[in-house]
Amino acid sequence: MVHLLIVGGSDAGISAALRAREVDPALEVTVVVADRFPNYSICGLPFYLSGEVPDWRDLAHRTAEDIERQGIHLLPEHVAQAVDPAGKSVTVVGPAGKARQLTYDRLVIATGAVSARPNIPGLDLPGVYLMRWMADGMAAHRHLAERPPQAAVVVGGGYIGMEMADALTQRGLAVTVVEYLESCLATLDADLGQVVQAELERHGVSVATGVAVEAIEPRGAALAVVGSGGLRVEADLVVVATGVQPETALARSAGVATGLRGAIRVNRAMETNVPGVYAAGDCVETWHRLLNAHTYLPLGSTAHKQGRVAGENAAGPEGAGGQREFAGSLGTQVVKVFNLVAARTGLREHEAAQAGFEPLTVETEAWDHKVYYPGAHKLRMRVTGDRRTGQLLGAQMVGRRQAEISKRLDVFAAALFHGMTVEALSDLDLSYTPPLSSPWDPVQMAAQAWVRMEVV
Amino acid sequence: MVHLLIVGGSDAGISAALRAREVDPALEVTVVVADRFPNYSICGLPFYLSGEVPDWRDLAHRTAEDIERQGIHLLPEHVAQAVDPAGKSVTVVGPAGKARQLTYDRLVIATGAVSARPNIPGLDLPGVYLMRWMADGMAAHRHLAERPPQAAVVVGGGYIGMEMADALTQRGLAVTVVEYLESCLATLDADLGQVVQAELERHGVSVATGVAVEAIEPRGAALAVVGSGGLRVEADLVVVATGVQPETALARSAGVATGLRGAIRVNRAMETNVPGVYAAGDCVETWHRLLNAHTYLPLGSTAHKQGRVAGENAAGPEGAGGQREFAGSLGTQVVKVFNLVAARTGLREHEAAQAGFEPLTVETEAWDHKVYYPGAHKLRMRVTGDRRTGQLLGAQMVGRRQAEISKRLDVFAAALFHGMTVEALSDLDLSYTPPLSSPWDPVQMAAQAWVRMEVV
Repeated sequence: MVHLLIVGGSDAGISAALRAREVDPALEVTVVVADRFPNYSICGLPFYLSGEVPDWRDLAHRTAEDIERQGIHLLPEHVAQAVDPAGKSVTVVGPAGKARQLTYDRLVIATGAVSARPNIPGLDLPGVYLMRWMADGMAAHRHLAERPPQAAVVVGGGYIGMEMADALTQRGLAVTVVEYLESCLATLDADLGQVVQAELERHGVSVATGVAVEAIEPRGAALAVVGSGGLRVEADLVVVATGVQPETALARSAGVATGLRGAIRVNRAMETNVPGVYAAGDCVETWHRLLNAHTYLPLGSTAHKQGRVAGENAAGPEGAGGQREFAGSLGTQVVKVFNLVAARTGLREHEAAQAGFEPLTVETEAWDHKVYYPGAHKLRMRVTGDRRTGQLLGAQMVGRRQAEISKRLDVFAAALFHGMTVEALSDLDLSYTPPLSSPWDPVQMAAQAWVRMEVV
Repeated sequence: MVHLLIVGGSDAGISAALRAREVDPALEVTVVVADRFPNYSICGLPFYLSGEVPDWRDLAHRTAEDIERQGIHLLPEHVAQAVDPAGKSVTVVGPAGKARQLTYDRLVIATGAVSARPNIPGLDLPGVYLMRWMADGMAAHRHLAERPPQAAVVVGGGYIGMEMADALTQRGLAVTVVEYLESCLATLDADLGQVVQAELERHGVSVATGVAVEAIEPRGAALAVVGSGGLRVEADLVVVATGVQPETALARSAGVATGLRGAIRVNRAMETNVPGVYAAGDCVETWHRLLNAHTYLPLGSTAHKQGRVAGENAAGPEGAGGQREFAGSLGTQVVKVFNLVAARTGLREHEAAQAGFEPLTVETEAWDHKVYYPGAHKLRMRVTGDRRTGQLLGAQMVGRRQAEISKRLDVFAAALFHGMTVEALSDLDLSYTPPLSSPWDPVQMAAQAWVRMEVV
């Protein structure tokens, strides 16, 4: 019987396992899970901390029983320490501390990423949390429940930082966000990031941008965050969310090559350089569909897709591997901050220019539906296209939660996937009724505005 | 100076005018408008009658001043009576009843559609309204304001019928819908139509399906609607919404050929058989992108697209016409009924089978976002694909208004546009955050469910 061993029980690992069993129900599949939380939605941690999700158990995408019912063998609380690619075995250490060997025919490495540890003294002080895995979230949750803090500092103004600021504010804390760059949510253009920042401030969050955090210091039972420009904020709780780095120690022990940002090199079939060893998720380089090159873009939605491809290929007949290819990421991202939604897909102006395109970016405002119908909200949209070919390169969108921004952005994402021109967006037969859109959907109005500017 | 004459001041006509001026700012453009309401959103009439839109003036997509500021000459309250294609002139009659000739170099016929008049005695009684143009809506509105009715019957359970039932219920009337077919909203599969019917009934609307209306009779100051199976409903107001038929008298006077359902024949450049004469909107046959054939699908969003193509081509240099092609309709439609949204795009099972495909339709239920985050709603989705090629053929979706159904359906519409396989939907990089979606968007879950069934 062919044995597929998967190391990593989060999005990529479980997707790989499920798809492999779907493709070959005779396959023996084992998933080594470092903690007790296979297939948890770690993207949901902010909502557990905010109180919106009262029970952490609800964060499971599916239960261990659901997974095992698919014929997948789970090994929770087992840490994989080394791979012997010649002997096709992995050394794992169980909860009792005893090492043993697991052999495999195919191996999927889905070890994910760990929180980046910025070079700041005080990161290990009690009350400081790097938010990544379930254990991090549960420790912070205990802190919130048992010694209710009054004030929090969030270090890092990216997606997670925004969500944590929202969550802790809802929890009743006074929150300060400290961001090194000049605007929050640097994955959007600065002035759109400022719209998100304004939403935070409207809800009482203090935001300090352009500030480098220099230290986190103990101050009695509390903490003080000290930064450039004389910043000094006292808090009972500090969340550090300054990005992630791929977890690749296991892969390196197998002789697997790494590349960009230290992530595992894979081809589009999710194969590493070591025969029979696949990798997927936040630990690997991500193929970018528009750049035609690899990048590092760790996202849950991408991890699911890559895991599915790895699982399907790893389950294939011996030597046949690589039938399925990862179609590539567009860097599509969305975040909800209080009542605002901000989203992007594809390339922004400077990213497109770096990649050799001749980008033009045009901003448009439009109502999400016919303004005569009650409850219309304005959307801010920014479309980037190539002047030479007219090709759509990217889109950004910010507006109220009710404005169906996330799924409108997906129309751009679907158009990007197919290499559409900006102009051709007007040809899409999108759904219209006055309470929900306009005869030209806002997405098409933004495209038409771009075409008008291109002609000028 | 080249003169573009457009007959019809609704969606298609004004789109044509705006696009023509955009393409050639030197073009002389005149739009003959039969009523006093150029470029009104007649799709908004139900919301004017419900009271959600207090002022009918707000239904204008743009004002007459906005249009004239684009260099377009409007002739309101002018009815075009005949075309002389040899002399390139159109006879129009103005508000004073005087006829005159307007010459043209290019002509766009955008005369729209009129309400179908079912063969029912009593259609012309006071209190009976066929809902199509602004004048119809204003007459019904006066009736509602001046002699507040208690009870209404809506004849026809299509999109407009559903919206009118919603509107009149909101207005405080007791409403009965009478539909000839066995279920409402026959553009969806019957059991999805029944979900919409249940939403109506939850809001107090009586729905009689499988009933042929035989007569509308005067009964004192009120009316009685009499139908098959002994139906007899008394009402103060009757709205008849049993579909439309293309308005083509003018086109026929020009020797323009008509086809399906009597609609004007056009090629994909929106040219009729008469040189220099274009047509667009509810008066023409509509190219269907999946069927590779013409059909009759009068919709506002389509009228805008066809008008834009007609305007662009009519504005082109002499003899160059036909550079731009209408990309085709997918029959995408959406309706909001109370707090429910129902939508479809592409072909349903029987439509696909008729067209020679080998369709398989699979239904899936999924939460609109991660169920652990508050406010999740279940979506019912139905995906139709071709067993032979795996090609996506269509999708239907029903669920709560909050579930971003309309724009989710647009992801299917964008996929259909590009001839994607159902399986490839999983490759789309769609946006994900737990409050708004799942790592696999519901659209992708529905596609994966189809793929699993296809294999079985």
